[in-house]
Amino acid sequence: MKRIKLVVAYDGTDYCGWQIQPSGVTIEEVLNRELSRLLGEEICVIGASRTDSGVHSLGNVAVFDSRTRIPPEKICYALNQRLPEDIVVQSSCEAAPDFHPRRCYSEKTYEYRILNRRLPLPTLRRYTYFYYRRLDEAKMNQAASYLMGKHDFKSFCSVKTSVEDTVREILSCTVRRRSEDMVVIRVTGTGFLYNMVRIIAGTLIQVGIGELEPQDIKEILEKRERSAAGPTAPALGLTMMGIVYGEGGCLYESDDVWDCGRNHKGILS
Amino acid sequence: MKRIKLVVAYDGTDYCGWQIQPSGVTIEEVLNRELSRLLGEEICVIGASRTDSGVHSLGNVAVFDSRTRIPPEKICYALNQRLPEDIVVQSSCEAAPDFHPRRCYSEKTYEYRILNRRLPLPTLRRYTYFYYRRLDEAKMNQAASYLMGKHDFKSFCSVKTSVEDTVREILSCTVRRRSEDMVVIRVTGTGFLYNMVRIIAGTLIQVGIGELEPQDIKEILEKRERSAAGPTAPALGLTMMGIVYGEGGCLYESDDVWDCGRNHKGILS
Repeated sequence: MKRIKLVVAYDGTDYCGWQIQPSGVTIEEVLNRELSRLLGEEICVIGASRTDSGVHSLGNVAVFDSRTRIPPEKICYALNQRLPEDIVVQSSCEAAPDFHPRRCYSEKTYEYRILNRRLPLPTLRRYTYFYYRRLDEAKMNQAASYLMGKHDFKSFCSVKTSVEDTVREILSCTVRRRSEDMVVIRVTGTGFLYNMVRIIAGTLIQVGIGELEPQDIKEILEKRERSAAGPTAPALGLTMMGIVYGEGGCLYESDDVWDCGRNHKGILS
Repeated sequence: MKRIKLVVAYDGTDYCGWQIQPSGVTIEEVLNRELSRLLGEEICVIGASRTDSGVHSLGNVAVFDSRTRIPPEKICYALNQRLPEDIVVQSSCEAAPDFHPRRCYSEKTYEYRILNRRLPLPTLRRYTYFYYRRLDEAKMNQAASYLMGKHDFKSFCSVKTSVEDTVREILSCTVRRRSEDMVVIRVTGTGFLYNMVRIIAGTLIQVGIGELEPQDIKEILEKRERSAAGPTAPALGLTMMGIVYGEGGCLYESDDVWDCGRNHKGILS
């Protein structure tokens, strides 16, 4: 029995998120079905980031156990032959038998992309949130700095969850105008609450239009109440960029393929 | 009667190109229908670039005459309310009565985007041509330089057209690796033949994998025969970036919104 680790990229537009649901097709379901057919045994993957309906990924991680004799590195090629074109496994490798994509220490990076211009662009409509009012990205970035570190993020957690410990650590949170029209919020952390990145994005947008001041973030954190933060920004702007594990699995790095240019590293380079 | 000029962006994935066809929906058809409904008169637009099925646009130009009393600059907003989300008019303005989007002198820019990496990326699949084999972009760029200037481009013209004068002028043709995984061919010219940019892209890819040498381009041009050049690259990699008119209409500039970063100018900035 081997533990196999996959790096999974997908266009989330036509899926009801990662996790299997009674209504609607999910990424997890498609992976389980096609892996089971390919390997001739029942496969149940464990995902690292259980992304919401409509959220995209360049580097989510899934793990499963198998008796297959296909070399682990080849599984991704065989699997991609069977997957629909909106899911592409970027790599497969053998992981340690006790490697767990959610329980092992990891640093996850998400990006929230906002198309901030006068009119939408059809070719970006599936992967960015279109926002008309001009955003002050410097103020947003200042606000973002108050989110860094270990905090109780209860104000940034959907009330639809029953999780008790709402303390999480954000290692980095920056906002920059990547081009004239594109404002990108990039967050790296060791764990996130339900809807946390989308609520952070919705709140930073409020700062960007002057409805909140950067230092208001401190007060919002202190309130420990969902209603203190801004709205949950739409799913389509969010992309799971990648996950770095310190140990317990093959170390890899998933970098920003959206970010054309400067110091670019490919996902698999 | 006023002549109105539109700058039209679209995701060409679900259209049979610009020009009205017996089978399948086209951009021209949708614009005519929605403009006629909006303005209450029969509208027939004239397009600048009659893009193929599956080709995208950030700045194609269309012109029509109307008796409307809606201020020209407001037409785009009213029209966008009616258009599907994969067509967005970026601006509308009054043009000179004799302005014609194809007959007036113009400089058109196209980009052909190639995702050049080991595996496809789902979120780029609609707007890039995925090509597995590593491309040598320096050689491609050298080859591209032989295309610049005034030449008989008969070898780079689809045999499906009956056009007689196949001399065209390319003002600029460059190839660069915009990021680790993305090779972009950018061509500006005063006029193009049927499938010309896609045949240029297919031929430059042959150079990129070493099947042709850069200097072979000279010979291909001299042959004046379609079979001398490389294959026609798939439509989905091609985007009409924008058109600059020297006179005869409101001058505008459409720049590269794909090109996140460096010296970026928004289409409407």
